Parts: sequence; structure tokens; C-alpha cells
Amino acid sequence: MNKITLLIHCEDQPNIIASVTNFMANNDGNIVYIDQHVDREQNIFFMRLECEFDSNSFSIENFKGSFNIALADKFQLKWRMYAAEKKPRMALFVSKYDHCLYDILGRYNSGELFLEIPFILSNHNDLKPIADSFNIPFYHVPVSKTTKREAELKQLELLESYSIDFIVLARYMQIVSGLLIDKYPNKIINIHHSFLPAFVGAKPYHSAYKRGVKIIGATSHYITEELDAGPIIEQDVAHVSHSYSIKDLIAKGRDLEKIVLSNAIKLHANRKVMVFNNKTVIFS
Amino acid sequence: MNKITLLIHCEDQPNIIASVTNFMANNDGNIVYIDQHVDREQNIFFMRLECEFDSNSFSIENFKGSFNIALADKFQLKWRMYAAEKKPRMALFVSKYDHCLYDILGRYNSGELFLEIPFILSNHNDLKPIADSFNIPFYHVPVSKTTKREAELKQLELLESYSIDFIVLARYMQIVSGLLIDKYPNKIINIHHSFLPAFVGAKPYHSAYKRGVKIIGATSHYITEELDAGPIIEQDVAHVSHSYSIKDLIAKGRDLEKIVLSNAIKLHANRKVMVFNNKTVIFS
Amino acid sequence: MNKITLLIHCEDQPNIIASVTNFMANNDGNIVYIDQHVDREQNIFFMRLECEFDSNSFSIENFKGSFNIALADKFQLKWRMYAAEKKPRMALFVSKYDHCLYDILGRYNSGELFLEIPFILSNHNDLKPIADSFNIPFYHVPVSKTTKREAELKQLELLESYSIDFIVLARYMQIVSGLLIDKYPNKIINIHHSFLPAFVGAKPYHSAYKRGVKIIGATSHYITEELDAGPIIEQDVAHVSHSYSIKDLIAKGRDLEKIVLSNAIKLHANRKVMVFNNKTVIFS
Amino acid sequence: MNKITLLIHCEDQPNIIASVTNFMANNDGNIVYIDQHVDREQNIFFMRLECEFDSNSFSIENFKGSFNIALADKFQLKWRMYAAEKKPRMALFVSKYDHCLYDILGRYNSGELFLEIPFILSNHNDLKPIADSFNIPFYHVPVSKTTKREAELKQLELLESYSIDFIVLARYMQIVSGLLIDKYPNKIINIHHSFLPAFVGAKPYHSAYKRGVKIIGATSHYITEELDAGPIIEQDVAHVSHSYSIKDLIAKGRDLEKIVLSNAIKLHANRKVMVFNNKTVIFS
Repeated sequence: MNKITLLIHCEDQPNIIASVTNFMANNDGNIVYIDQHVDREQNIFFMRLECEFDSNSFSIENFKGSFNIALADKFQLKWRMYAAEKKPRMALFVSKYDHCLYDILGRYNSGELFLEIPFILSNHNDLKPIADSFNIPFYHVPVSKTTKREAELKQLELLESYSIDFIVLARYMQIVSGLLIDKYPNKIINIHHSFLPAFVGAKPYHSAYKRGVKIIGATSHYITEELDAGPIIEQDVAHVSHSYSIKDLIAKGRDLEKIVLSNAIKLHANRKVMVFNNKTVIFS
Repeated sequence: MNKITLLIHCEDQPNIIASVTNFMANNDGNIVYIDQHVDREQNIFFMRLECEFDSNSFSIENFKGSFNIALADKFQLKWRMYAAEKKPRMALFVSKYDHCLYDILGRYNSGELFLEIPFILSNHNDLKPIADSFNIPFYHVPVSKTTKREAELKQLELLESYSIDFIVLARYMQIVSGLLIDKYPNKIINIHHSFLPAFVGAKPYHSAYKRGVKIIGATSHYITEELDAGPIIEQDVAHVSHSYSIKDLIAKGRDLEKIVLSNAIKLHANRKVMVFNNKTVIFS
Repeated sequence: MNKITLLIHCEDQPNIIASVTNFMANNDGNIVYIDQHVDREQNIFFMRLECEFDSNSFSIENFKGSFNIALADKFQLKWRMYAAEKKPRMALFVSKYDHCLYDILGRYNSGELFLEIPFILSNHNDLKPIADSFNIPFYHVPVSKTTKREAELKQLELLESYSIDFIVLARYMQIVSGLLIDKYPNKIINIHHSFLPAFVGAKPYHSAYKRGVKIIGATSHYITEELDAGPIIEQDVAHVSHSYSIKDLIAKGRDLEKIVLSNAIKLHANRKVMVFNNKTVIFS
Repeated sequence: MNKITLLIHCEDQPNIIASVTNFMANNDGNIVYIDQHVDREQNIFFMRLECEFDSNSFSIENFKGSFNIALADKFQLKWRMYAAEKKPRMALFVSKYDHCLYDILGRYNSGELFLEIPFILSNHNDLKPIADSFNIPFYHVPVSKTTKREAELKQLELLESYSIDFIVLARYMQIVSGLLIDKYPNKIINIHHSFLPAFVGAKPYHSAYKRGVKIIGATSHYITEELDAGPIIEQDVAHVSHSYSIKDLIAKGRDLEKIVLSNAIKLHANRKVMVFNNKTVIFS
């Protein structure tokens, strides 16, 4: 049984749904999932569809070709199609904090995540033993002001040689430059330790403490050139009180960070996220 | 512009989505919303669809007829179709508590609810001034052990004479019998003041206090013959602590009750709820 | 039985707790509640205490005097003492939105709020019928650019003549000037429709929509001269998705606004809030 | 600097707070934290207090003695006193699930937990490599119907030889008998994968699925002889929908389980939990 996942967006217009579902039926496909959204402010149509094909002779490459000819031009579609059983390959960038790393690897180990982790990369060596204990290759690529470009070129080389599909910054603590962002647009997932857009930048828990907020949060988003301003994938919050010291806020925040980041990874890996105009549409 | 809302469920089988969407297209309909769910345990397919028809000559009654002939038999569909612009008519049953009543009427007044409230009914006269201040007819139908059947017959008469589509028990405090339930299956919405199935029955806040729970909840569900066991539409919870007295729990609970009930009303009124085998599918 | 509520803050120093509790015991007081907090960053001690005095001859005015002589100077205390049974008097400022008003008045009516509402004031006449239905005097004080000062002087006159203790801006929609703030420092409670400090200023739901956040919030805070930057009393949030239009965000936000504002009112009216350096300490 | 933590409960009666605080002052103690609660239904007074003693000659054993003589009898106190800097020693019982184990050990490693973990024990060998990677002794004590008593005697021996203060069942999956419970009353912490009292017993996620709840939860509680009925320490919940399969509920539940259990451990280890009549008082 062959199963594809199709993601579409285009200008909203009549008959898209019927045309696409009809095309699937005419190709002996059986749609097993369909969801759609119309952004009425921007007049954009979004759709996510899963379709099964019984035939032994089904080829996703051929099918992409006929889909392109039959529909893509006609509706001016932007689209992506995946073989549903093919796991995406994720590179994990870390620094010295281990809570997100343990959380992700624990899930990975238990089979909860539909993805491969070919390698872990860090600008420090501290977390290598954790990578080792999970039997995942670990690369130490130090970054300093003067070596940043060189380090990113090294990263790119690794990403390409391992055929990486997307990158997760699990408290990586370094600003990623346009060099990587351009190669992996909406494919670099970050976890920011505040409910963005509050407390952009460094030390958000210190800012939260200073402002006396009663709720702290964490935000997972795609990296764009503008700092902490990329499309938001997932957010969560927790109630706090005056009795929380900055250290308490940081500890509470770690729980949010790891859950929010792992949820964002799952949404991305399961091809449930679309991005348009710096916002996400999430078919969950 | 004519718009219909269609709700379908049937045994899961290939080509339902394409067949339905195709039927809409062949009848010059433009699908503007589609969502579906497959219950894999029970092998049941659910779908909700909104479709627009441009033609002046469109008649929903005729369209229902052709839909029935073309598809309902073939796929053994259970289905409902609504003229999207037609507001459902809701009867509001209350007793002496006013928090849910104020919440619902406040929303109703502000235009937040897509429904009509032809009348309010109570077994007590206490809340009549509120009904009056919102200019809604109020019926006082006392209920005692000996007059219960008589009271319910009176209720049925009112419900029918006002062409009521569904009933909301806004802390009505009376057990509704099969007489009404059979006439309004999955059309009587109750608010229970606990996170069901914990604390079924009367005095759930007292039970919650006794058990020392750290979270209380409220549950909105359809009434069935078995007490507090009907299909759950909406639930929410709030954190509490040892410092909460029963009175504090009740006060906190009122906030949950009113929000949860109003959300359930909105889901039902917007035809977003399907029921199968005592569980809901909610297309929100 | 006489009961007092005492709120204290001062520089942190040894023996404050023992000295205060000892003073109460020596005056035949029985402490029935005590809570304290030390802000270690600023080295400030906060305490809230409830104490009962059995004697017929107890006079809170006399007791305030002896407390002042015995302790206030010695520890350089800032303190407030209340007769616990005396309800604070709250003025309610509204504009055209009615959801917070209904919520507050419903609670007031049911006895949930420990306070008096001597009058409701608005810059519009729209909500007068609601005030009437709850039998609360309503004052219409229009505000325009040119009449703002005049209007605030009229407001001050009303506040004083009714011996108002604190003011609640229940979606009042007008910026309150220093004229009122100086007379009622940390005594004017506002509800802002975002999780501050995100989306300061007007139209936060529009900003939230534009940024594509997955969580919206509401914040109740004391008014200070700087817009939306006063001490935060209470916050809450709700999850939203890409499918929410601005109208949906506004509707969801109304639920947050009314619950958050009412909670803040309860905390303030029960003398559970202290303010220091633009942050609150909340003894709940 | 010597610091003690004192936990008291007794029948509510006048002058307890003043008597205790006075006693501390008379012994040159400086109270740095005090919190109290009165259960008005049962007329029980609870207090938690932290006090610092400057003197080099301070001995907690001597101080316990004089506290006992001066106050314990007079007020019929039940009390516990700890040297605040002494970390409690926690035994970790696991089975085959690793998510709670990773979560706890990750926090332990990062210094977030104020406790020692002298050993990990399991009825299976599967998680030994994780214990090894954290350099914590691991004991494999198989349990079968016929060997249960023998296994528990072996457990008791280990618990005593390691001077264990409390036990955490991190998804241990075995029912613990009175043999252990009697030795460690209110000192065995369990994590149950539902919001108790809903879904007591095995397979709560299956029951939740069947009932169609919109919220799932997790509950951490002390083990008592009655299954899943012990005093509740901490609970949390997450929203779910009809689209969640049982597998999805289990995955979502794992996130709740690990956070809720770790929070309960922190509260217990920091001596913030008191138990009376099968309910907890939590001074957080």
C-alpha cells in the first residue's frame, strides 16, 4: 500500500477541493484524511490530504508529474508531496543545556517520534556523553566571533552529507545566520524561553521576573533572519507567583521548553505545518 | 448565495470523500469547508462540509432529495443537512442559579451566539426578572414528585409550540425523564459541575473537597437515560488547593460551568457536533 | 468578635515575625492567618496577617495607634490595617462593552464579592439599562478631547462624595490621567486584553492575529502613568489556532477578560495584594 | 548558620502561632518563612516554618528536645523538624517505562532536585543501562505472584541499608503491599495516569478513550492500602479531542506523568507536604 501526504496552498478560488479529490479518485487513490483552511484576510486556501494507492505500479515520482500537469498550473498551486512512510531526517543542534536533549532522545528511543536523528552537533563538548549513551554520532563544531562563518560552512557540509531535512535548535544558544536559513527556509526549529512576542532576545526569565508577570511561557518557531520573529509553531505557558525567584522561573520554564519543542518537532515531522506570510497553519 | 452544512457518518469505505465532493461540484456547489474523521476502533467515517450554491433556483429541499438518491443509499449514510443561515431555536431551562443564565444571555445580547432563544423555563420564579430584563418570555412550570409527568407534558407542549430545536439545562437541577430525552435525542445539553466521570451525581464539589483533589472541573454533555453518562461535548478545569473551602470550590466552579456550557452551546448551534456510540466528534 | 487584617512591608531584618506576633498576643489577639514573603533581590519583607480580638472594648483606632508606637517606627514599617468586616467601596467605570459588567454584577448579586458598588459611571449611556436592572446608580460623564479634564474633575467629585476606596475600569476604553492616578495610587484596576507585556496599547487582538500567536491572554493590573505598564495582579490565557479570525479571538478574549478582571477585584477587595516597586505580592 | 524546617499540626486553638514564634525568638532563632492553614471542617491547624540560628553551639537534637518540652505537650502537637541543609534520600522504583526515569535523572543531574538517589530498583533489567549512564546503583529484584513477599523483604533490606527516607514509584507497575506501606507511611509516592478519582485502576487511558473525555490527566499521590485512593499531592491535565487514538492519549499522558511526578517529588523533598485524614496540605 502506497500512501502520500499532500500539502497545498494557493489563492482561494472555487472548486479546488473537488478538483483535487476528483484527481485522486481518477488515479485510483482513496483519500483517508483531508483538512483545509481559508485565510480570509489574505484570501489564501490551504489543504492537507492523505491518500492511499493500492496499485503495485504506483510511483510517487510519476504521480507528482501528473499532479503537476493536471492541477498545479491551473490553480497556481504551491505544493509539496511526501511518501508518507518516509521518515524525515533531523539534525539536532545543542549547546550545554541537556533538558531538551534528554526529552527528545527519550521520545526518539521509545518510538514516539516519526523521524531519524543522523547526528547531534554542538559548539561545546559537554553533552557528548549523552549522545554516546544513545549511540548517535556527535560533532563538536566550536563557534567564536571570528570562526562563525567557517563553523557554519562546516555545519552545512555535515547537513548535506547526511541528507538532513530539518534542523532543531534545542537550546543551541547561537544566532544562526542567513547562510543556513536560506538553505533551510522554514526548516530550522527553535525554542525560545518566553511567550513571544513578549521578552524577545536574551534573558527572558530575567525580564519576566522584573516585569512581575503571573504567567511564563515558551515558544517554538521557525528561524528567520529577524531575531525571535519567525512563524510560531507551538506555545505553552505556566502560572507563577511573586514567590518564584529567577532560578525558580528558569526551572519551571525548562518544563515548558522541552514539551513545547517536542510538540513542534512532532508537528513538523508529521508534515502538519504550513507557513505563509510568517504565520503557520497547523493541521493537527 | 445559498449555503448548506452537511454532516455525515457511515461505515468507513473507499471513495466517500471524492464521491461527496464530486456530487457537490456536479451540482454547481463550491465547497468552502471540509473536515473528516475516521474512528479506527469502530471503523466509522465522519464528515462535515459547507458548500455554497450560487443559483437563484437552488432549493435545499430538492437538493436533499437528490443527495439522498445519489449517495445516501449507496454508502448507507446517516446524514443531516442544514441551511447554514437558519439559526437553531434553543429553549433555556433554569432553576435558581443565575450565573449560567447571565453568561448565556449576555452573549446572546451581544450577538455572539448563532441561535434564537424563544423562551426560558424554570421550576421556580426567582429568575423571571432576568428574563424580563432581556425581554424573553418566561414560563414557570413547577415540578414536584407527584407532578413531574404533568410538568414534562407541559414542557413538551411548549417545546413543540415554539418549534424548539434543542434544549439547554443551565443548572436546571431536575432529572429529565425519557419522555423528553426520546423526543430530543442528543439535543438536550447539560452542564455538570465536575470533570466527569469523576464525581457523578449530586454535590460533586463536596466530593471533590472530601477527596482532596488539586483540580476541579466542569463537563457539558448530552443528556441520556443514564445519569451524567451522556456524550461529552466540552470540559474544562481549574487548579485549586487545600486552602479552598467548599464555598470557594463552588465559586471557582461557577466560572468553569458558565464558560464550558456556553462553549458547548456554540459548538452545537454551529452544527459542529456529531454523536456516535455515546461519544462526540467535534469539528471545531 | 473584632477581626483585623494587617499588611506590612519593610526592609528585611531579623525578628519581625516574632515581634509582630508577640505584639498581637500581648494585646489578647489570636492570629488566625499569617503569610509572608521575602523579596531577596530587593531585600524587602512582606507580611499579611489576620488577628481576632475578643474584647468588647477593642477599638481598631486605638489599636492602630499602639501598633504604630510599638512597631512601626522600630522596623520602619509601611503598613495598612483594616477592620476585616468592613467592605471596600468600589466604583465601576464602563464604556459600551457589557461582558465584564454582567460578570461583575452577577457575582455581586449572588454575594460572591466582598465589596459595595455605590455607582457605575460611563462615558456613554448604552449600559444604563443594565445598571438600572441591578438597581445601581448610573452616571453618564461624557469625555471628549476638550472636556477630558472637566470630566475627570466631575469623576473625582463623585468618587469623593461616595467615599470610594478603589476603582475598576471594566473595559472603560479611556486613558485615565494623573489627576485620578495620584488620588488613587494602586487603587485603579484595569483589564488589558493581552498577556502583557506582549501587545501593549490599542487593538491587541489584531496584533495577536497578525503575529500568529497560538495563545492569547488577558491581564489585570493597576493603572500607572505609563500605559499598560502598571503592577500585574492577575493573568490568564487560552489556546487558539490559525482557524481563529480576529472576531473569534475577540470572543474568546472576552471570556478571559471577565474572569481575570473579577479575580483581580476579589484579590484587591479581600486585601490580598501588596505593591512594591511596580510588582505585586499576592497572598492568596 | 543553622536552619531548621518545622512542620506542625494539631487541633486548632488560640495562640499557637504566637507561642511558636515566641519560642523561636527566645532561642535566638530568626524566622525566615512561615505559612499556616486551618482546616475549618476538621478544626485542624497546620503550620510550616523555617528558622535560622546563628550560634555555633546550636544542636538540632537539643533544640528538638526543648521544643518538645516547651510546646509539644501543651498544644498536643504532631510535629517534624529537619535540618534544612540535609537532603532526603530517595529510592527510585521503575519497571520498563523510561520517560519518568529520564525526566527525574535529568533534573537530578542538573541540580534541580534537593535530594540524593542512592539506588534505582526494578523488577526488570531493561532500564539498567540508563541507571549506569547516570552512575547510580541498579538492583534487579524480580517480582512474581509467588515471590512477591520475598521480593518485598529484599526491597525492605535495601531501603534500610541505604537509609532511604522516601520511595518514588516511577511507573513501577506493581502493587505495593502493606509490608512496605506500614514502614513508609505517606512516604511512597506514586504516579497514576488519570485525574483521580476518575479511572481508578489499570488501563485508565483505555477507559478515557472509551468514555470520550475531552481532558486527560495524571495524579501523583501517596500510596495507601486502598488502591489509587491515597492523599493527592499534585495533578495536571491536558486537552484532547476525538482525533486522539489510545496511542495518542498514552503519548500525551507521558508528558503529564513525568511533569506531575517530578513536581510531587520536589514538594515532598522540600518538606512542603503535610498529610491529615487522607488529604494533603501543601505549602508551596
